[in-house]
Amino acid sequence: MVETIRIAAEKIRKLQVQGARNVAIAAVKAIQTQAELTKAKNKIQFLCELKEAQTVFVASRETEPLMRNAIRWIITQAQGVKTEKVETLSQNVVANANQFLKDLEDSKEHIAEIGANRIHDNSVVFTHCHSSTVTCLLAKAKADGKNIKVICTETRPAYQGRITANELVGLGIETTFIVDSAARSFMENVDIVIVGADAITSEGNVVNKIGSSSIAVLAHEARVPFYVVSELLKFDPETLNGECEKIEQRSPNEVWKEAPPKLIVRNPAFDVTSNRYIHGLICEEGIIAPQTIVEVMHRKYPWVF
Amino acid sequence: MVETIRIAAEKIRKLQVQGARNVAIAAVKAIQTQAELTKAKNKIQFLCELKEAQTVFVASRETEPLMRNAIRWIITQAQGVKTEKVETLSQNVVANANQFLKDLEDSKEHIAEIGANRIHDNSVVFTHCHSSTVTCLLAKAKADGKNIKVICTETRPAYQGRITANELVGLGIETTFIVDSAARSFMENVDIVIVGADAITSEGNVVNKIGSSSIAVLAHEARVPFYVVSELLKFDPETLNGECEKIEQRSPNEVWKEAPPKLIVRNPAFDVTSNRYIHGLICEEGIIAPQTIVEVMHRKYPWVF
Amino acid sequence: MVETIRIAAEKIRKLQVQGARNVAIAAVKAIQTQAELTKAKNKIQFLCELKEAQTVFVASRETEPLMRNAIRWIITQAQGVKTEKVETLSQNVVANANQFLKDLEDSKEHIAEIGANRIHDNSVVFTHCHSSTVTCLLAKAKADGKNIKVICTETRPAYQGRITANELVGLGIETTFIVDSAARSFMENVDIVIVGADAITSEGNVVNKIGSSSIAVLAHEARVPFYVVSELLKFDPETLNGECEKIEQRSPNEVWKEAPPKLIVRNPAFDVTSNRYIHGLICEEGIIAPQTIVEVMHRKYPWVF
Amino acid sequence: MVETIRIAAEKIRKLQVQGARNVAIAAVKAIQTQAELTKAKNKIQFLCELKEAQTVFVASRETEPLMRNAIRWIITQAQGVKTEKVETLSQNVVANANQFLKDLEDSKEHIAEIGANRIHDNSVVFTHCHSSTVTCLLAKAKADGKNIKVICTETRPAYQGRITANELVGLGIETTFIVDSAARSFMENVDIVIVGADAITSEGNVVNKIGSSSIAVLAHEARVPFYVVSELLKFDPETLNGECEKIEQRSPNEVWKEAPPKLIVRNPAFDVTSNRYIHGLICEEGIIAPQTIVEVMHRKYPWVF
Amino acid sequence: MVETIRIAAEKIRKLQVQGARNVAIAAVKAIQTQAELTKAKNKIQFLCELKEAQTVFVASRETEPLMRNAIRWIITQAQGVKTEKVETLSQNVVANANQFLKDLEDSKEHIAEIGANRIHDNSVVFTHCHSSTVTCLLAKAKADGKNIKVICTETRPAYQGRITANELVGLGIETTFIVDSAARSFMENVDIVIVGADAITSEGNVVNKIGSSSIAVLAHEARVPFYVVSELLKFDPETLNGECEKIEQRSPNEVWKEAPPKLIVRNPAFDVTSNRYIHGLICEEGIIAPQTIVEVMHRKYPWVF
Amino acid sequence: MVETIRIAAEKIRKLQVQGARNVAIAAVKAIQTQAELTKAKNKIQFLCELKEAQTVFVASRETEPLMRNAIRWIITQAQGVKTEKVETLSQNVVANANQFLKDLEDSKEHIAEIGANRIHDNSVVFTHCHSSTVTCLLAKAKADGKNIKVICTETRPAYQGRITANELVGLGIETTFIVDSAARSFMENVDIVIVGADAITSEGNVVNKIGSSSIAVLAHEARVPFYVVSELLKFDPETLNGECEKIEQRSPNEVWKEAPPKLIVRNPAFDVTSNRYIHGLICEEGIIAPQTIVEVMHRKYPWVF
Repeated sequence: MVETIRIAAEKIRKLQVQGARNVAIAAVKAIQTQAELTKAKNKIQFLCELKEAQTVFVASRETEPLMRNAIRWIITQAQGVKTEKVETLSQNVVANANQFLKDLEDSKEHIAEIGANRIHDNSVVFTHCHSSTVTCLLAKAKADGKNIKVICTETRPAYQGRITANELVGLGIETTFIVDSAARSFMENVDIVIVGADAITSEGNVVNKIGSSSIAVLAHEARVPFYVVSELLKFDPETLNGECEKIEQRSPNEVWKEAPPKLIVRNPAFDVTSNRYIHGLICEEGIIAPQTIVEVMHRKYPWVF
Repeated sequence: MVETIRIAAEKIRKLQVQGARNVAIAAVKAIQTQAELTKAKNKIQFLCELKEAQTVFVASRETEPLMRNAIRWIITQAQGVKTEKVETLSQNVVANANQFLKDLEDSKEHIAEIGANRIHDNSVVFTHCHSSTVTCLLAKAKADGKNIKVICTETRPAYQGRITANELVGLGIETTFIVDSAARSFMENVDIVIVGADAITSEGNVVNKIGSSSIAVLAHEARVPFYVVSELLKFDPETLNGECEKIEQRSPNEVWKEAPPKLIVRNPAFDVTSNRYIHGLICEEGIIAPQTIVEVMHRKYPWVF
Repeated sequence: MVETIRIAAEKIRKLQVQGARNVAIAAVKAIQTQAELTKAKNKIQFLCELKEAQTVFVASRETEPLMRNAIRWIITQAQGVKTEKVETLSQNVVANANQFLKDLEDSKEHIAEIGANRIHDNSVVFTHCHSSTVTCLLAKAKADGKNIKVICTETRPAYQGRITANELVGLGIETTFIVDSAARSFMENVDIVIVGADAITSEGNVVNKIGSSSIAVLAHEARVPFYVVSELLKFDPETLNGECEKIEQRSPNEVWKEAPPKLIVRNPAFDVTSNRYIHGLICEEGIIAPQTIVEVMHRKYPWVF
Repeated sequence: MVETIRIAAEKIRKLQVQGARNVAIAAVKAIQTQAELTKAKNKIQFLCELKEAQTVFVASRETEPLMRNAIRWIITQAQGVKTEKVETLSQNVVANANQFLKDLEDSKEHIAEIGANRIHDNSVVFTHCHSSTVTCLLAKAKADGKNIKVICTETRPAYQGRITANELVGLGIETTFIVDSAARSFMENVDIVIVGADAITSEGNVVNKIGSSSIAVLAHEARVPFYVVSELLKFDPETLNGECEKIEQRSPNEVWKEAPPKLIVRNPAFDVTSNRYIHGLICEEGIIAPQTIVEVMHRKYPWVF
Repeated sequence: MVETIRIAAEKIRKLQVQGARNVAIAAVKAIQTQAELTKAKNKIQFLCELKEAQTVFVASRETEPLMRNAIRWIITQAQGVKTEKVETLSQNVVANANQFLKDLEDSKEHIAEIGANRIHDNSVVFTHCHSSTVTCLLAKAKADGKNIKVICTETRPAYQGRITANELVGLGIETTFIVDSAARSFMENVDIVIVGADAITSEGNVVNKIGSSSIAVLAHEARVPFYVVSELLKFDPETLNGECEKIEQRSPNEVWKEAPPKLIVRNPAFDVTSNRYIHGLICEEGIIAPQTIVEVMHRKYPWVF
Repeated sequence: MVETIRIAAEKIRKLQVQGARNVAIAAVKAIQTQAELTKAKNKIQFLCELKEAQTVFVASRETEPLMRNAIRWIITQAQGVKTEKVETLSQNVVANANQFLKDLEDSKEHIAEIGANRIHDNSVVFTHCHSSTVTCLLAKAKADGKNIKVICTETRPAYQGRITANELVGLGIETTFIVDSAARSFMENVDIVIVGADAITSEGNVVNKIGSSSIAVLAHEARVPFYVVSELLKFDPETLNGECEKIEQRSPNEVWKEAPPKLIVRNPAFDVTSNRYIHGLICEEGIIAPQTIVEVMHRKYPWVF
């Protein structure tokens, strides 16, 4: 295994790379590099290297179906190439990795465009945490000439809401910033909630930053539509087999550095929003009801299963 | 007006004194001192001083019915004394202030005892922010031999949950500490939610630390009973006249010190929990349905109206 | 029985006098006239006349507790006068009738004032049908300098919403007029719903113009507070005894004049809104939870029972 | 203590006497007998006997506030008699016991009458378990000329529904009998649910036969009003102090006689229905919202506290 | 472009042709005529004419996916014909138009049959507005020997409910006619709600006559199943791309002819019912959950995308 | 028709064979035997025999889509064989019947495995009635080293819960046994509900033992996920055509042997749980949202339609 793999996996493990997209991109690029630098003598060795990389990346983070699906796809493609030549295989991996990265970027653009259509002029959008797709979507809505205001939460413990706020202010969008607990007080005047996703389960539930599911409940209480933007490849096929999406438990230090010794500090990074509270999933296929995710995947990405 | 009044009011205004109880105590003590040091020549002047102090304190903080009720009671009592002697009036104020402080302390004990009865052995209690009555109640439950665990939120932006966590750990109670956004993830295993109150409206809604009303909604979603502990004198008679309880807006700095210049940071200190989500009001009268608050006040504290 | 009684009762029966207040006023004035013109020879005859009038008015309309309570009060007062002189009794009835009419007018003012306090600046108020108290309340809010917009329904079949719309436009309030069925489409942007009442039951449910209870459900669905303005004397003591508030069935002609012969046209004038959907009852006592109505009546109007 | 007390308490303990009313009647009659047969030499001894009887009865069954309130009332009355003569005291106890028994019977009649008014002609009533007041109410409704149908559950494990079914068939009421689990399947066509009560808590929640609270939830789901008939003296003042109503755990044998040895059989006799699901409490005061119970008790039975 | 197109489009624009089906039929017939009368010299010209007609019809009404899908299908088919002969193309268009009209009629029959199966004997059906498919379905249920009663609303402002009432009375079905606001009062005794549709969104929400979504909420509140009958081709593929279904705003005159000058009269023709409130979509495929609409369309009408 | 068919059908009709799986197995085996013993002279006669058997079995029980789908499959396969030789056809039926039985057994194993993954360590599982798949799933969870506790209802009237309890105790699982009515009292501490299914409708609703739908409602009320385990072939294609799943009405004797003569005893065997209350369908495809059932069937078992 080339060093690149180890370094990338380490960065993912240490949360130096964050967000489902960034994690997937880092892994794919490392595998691309590995394929370029491969010293494998034959197909078997080459595929073996890929599998090893896969093992390392899967172990680096619990909740990252996008990364896992990306790697699975690249390996499946390589396995399907009818050649014994390592060079051909290497080119195949590089090309497919490039394709994946391009598709991912295109998806973001496409999703942003679709989502922007769903935002009415003069509306108040609520978001939580940071999602580059959500920012892109809001930028698009503004570029479409819509007058929008955004409310974003700070998103404890890691304050990713500050990244969102900075980006939105930079885009010239009127943005209001609140603590997470204030979501309900501001929900009355919200027209639409849009958040990102880290994973989608086979029932169509969405795993996203801790607090997302509360916001979904509060949006429901106030009859505010709650949308999730997500690439379809965040679908986690393991959930189909009954596995619950693992909820990463992060360091207590993020929450309280000098906590009293006997205090138990719990810091789950994500929570699960039931399909019951999700008005629509905005993905590269368009806006769909989350309940159909398995059939959509069978139609679009059958290799995922 | 004696200096004490000005100083106390200033501390209240600057949030150096916090919490409904502490604010009321500070004001009552200052008025007690004023009465002791009075230079009033006659009843009219004496009452005038009291009214002035009332005006100053009312202006010092928007949401403090307990303080306002306390002062109103002391003044009402003084007005009722059939004397022209300033000394007698001064003694009356001092005595009533003492009485009020003692009643307040007794109420806390009494409420804690009642509330502790409502906690079953081996149960998980959820709380938000800091309330000395809630801590007292939990201590009582433990002293009654009940094995309890507590989950408490950090309560952004001012982290009052850390005070609660420190107190509970100090009491030897197994305590779990989470960010506010994680409330829903932990609610599934909670047996009872107990929070304090800053004000009670005439419909029986409760004003408390920002985030309380979300927790009430989430408790309701999971069929977990949500109780509020409160002295009855936190009832705000102005709400009867249609006034909405004012929600104090605190400094943006508490939320984000180096916020980007154009970002609007909103920092409401409280929110309102509807009686619909409140399982019971634990007050010095016992556990009652919040909807009856006006009739309970008419029976117990008719002078409030 | 003087002719006045017969005429007034006939107008009430034929819906020439409408609205709980107007009906009560018409009946009280007729009884006042009867008392002035009485030819009764003694107390017994005089009271007999009053009872007869009561019977006639009760029979004239099914759902009018305000009228019934008003008459009961006047009779109770007359019965209590320690005299045999018809003249004294007559004066007593005239005086009490005047008192009732004045109290009713004062209540309206008082309720309007309380309700106006509950309306925030820059808010959208939703109302249904026509209630002079609601119009008065909105006028007050505007006079208080608040910028308000109102949405009102046409209120089929009798189009009382047009009266409301005319009054509001006359007051210079920006008013939007919609068909009843459009309530849900506009509810998303409403800040508060305020409607009148025809009767209040012992559980705290409210009888009001057909369609009110749907609006309450839709307000609840969108977390919009739903308030009812009502004099406490619209409380119907018969409901305490289990009687259901009778729902008047009006003429099918109001709905469809040339309906096909075999079609069953049903035209109930009122419906019942459960206390569960009522955020507060705005009455002369202030804003209260509707559940406490029986205790409030015992405290304020014990003669009602 | 006379033998009567021991025997009566034993019957209560062994469930040979069942139902809140029957238990209270048995205890009151035993105390009456005790007073008649008393050998007490003086007031102190006499009161001592009463207190002893109280202790025995309180210990005989956990959830019986009606019995406890009855005994408390008799003792309070005896204590208040200004005499030292045992004979007078004995007469007082006998008279008050008679009074209580008569009031209880009158309450049942009165409640039945009120409740019968609430039943519309041609309606389907749903009931659970057996309550003599409910049977009386249904008989009254039929006697009033109303055409009613009743659905009643068998009420496992003790099949009290069979008693209800027998009584109703005896009254000539068309009755449908179902297993408890079928409640939801039949709820769609129900017009009103009416059940009895064993205890009422200070928040206005109702303790009744296991399964009642599920039926309340299912009635709520189908927008069917759920009424509880109950004498006010089933109010349990201990709940005001935070005590949870004890839920009696009955013998596993009632559920499954030959259960496998390691199986844990749980047999709680009651459950708690939240005031949220109760449309009205039909009591001797009329139909009230359960939330006001504490204030109603203060007005009607202040000695209870 | 032949005159027929202009005339048909004008009628649609002026609401002289109403209802999704009628609008689609009018447009298809006009295009059929155009194809028959075409003077196009070659394929390009012929297709150009079709596109022009498409543009005119799309502009004639905002919310008509059935019409738009029909035209798209005819054009797609014509484009696919491997010929340059205008005559062949013309025949193709005529044939496909006929096919579409026949399929549409067959769908109605088929849907009516399926829906009629879902109606139990002796049940009360609630409907809103006018839908020829619903009438057909009810006629079928009656023809199947089922004893049904129907409640229908008048459907302000255009009173389409009168058309429904006339048709049902004509069919000998016992029909009750009410104002829109009375829906909740009658919902308690309803067994099933069935309405038509103007459009279906990609999430499975349904656009139908204003008021439909309120009825869905009220049906849900009373646990009454709410069904929508609709041809699958009312699915609007633009919603997949984020476009919100446009809600046509009709003339204020329909609501109030002599409205006061400053009054804002709003007259939206449709509203959106969330899939959450829809028990089933009765379409030519059978009864399906609305959430799956996108996958069903991909299987049945892939050319729609 | 061979005797085997008649006997098997009779056993099914008399409830001597119970449970969707057992019924299907009995029918398939009988058809297998029939095919082995066939005296048919040609293909037509052979297929005729099969059709006859189908008719007999369909008539033997109302709610058994699994059996009906199994028979349809075997017949469809036989019809497709390109031969006229009876022997070949007979072998085909025997082989397909074996295949079906094996697939059914494999499905159970597979479903149990998937479902076991969804159970967390240290969790409390609630179940109702008896399902061999649920028992198998719980056994698997225990075998996977998970510490689980189970609560099971007795399931009146036929006490199938006792079978479940016996099996679980036999497996060494800590099991609590309660009456059906106690479900709500125990739901607060439940982590997951898992029940079986008798049929799945085209909307994704589930038909299962009477009481299941109440438990679903109560689980929803307490935010406890409710899962259904089911082979996909329990899908009933007739529901697509609008047919309501027939609810079998069993003998009143099961409920009350000595019921009074005029009492109507109703004993429906099943009820319908709406997809709204089902968190996931655990089938051989994995865990899916029930709303997609029609599309899943089209992908997996297209011959069903």
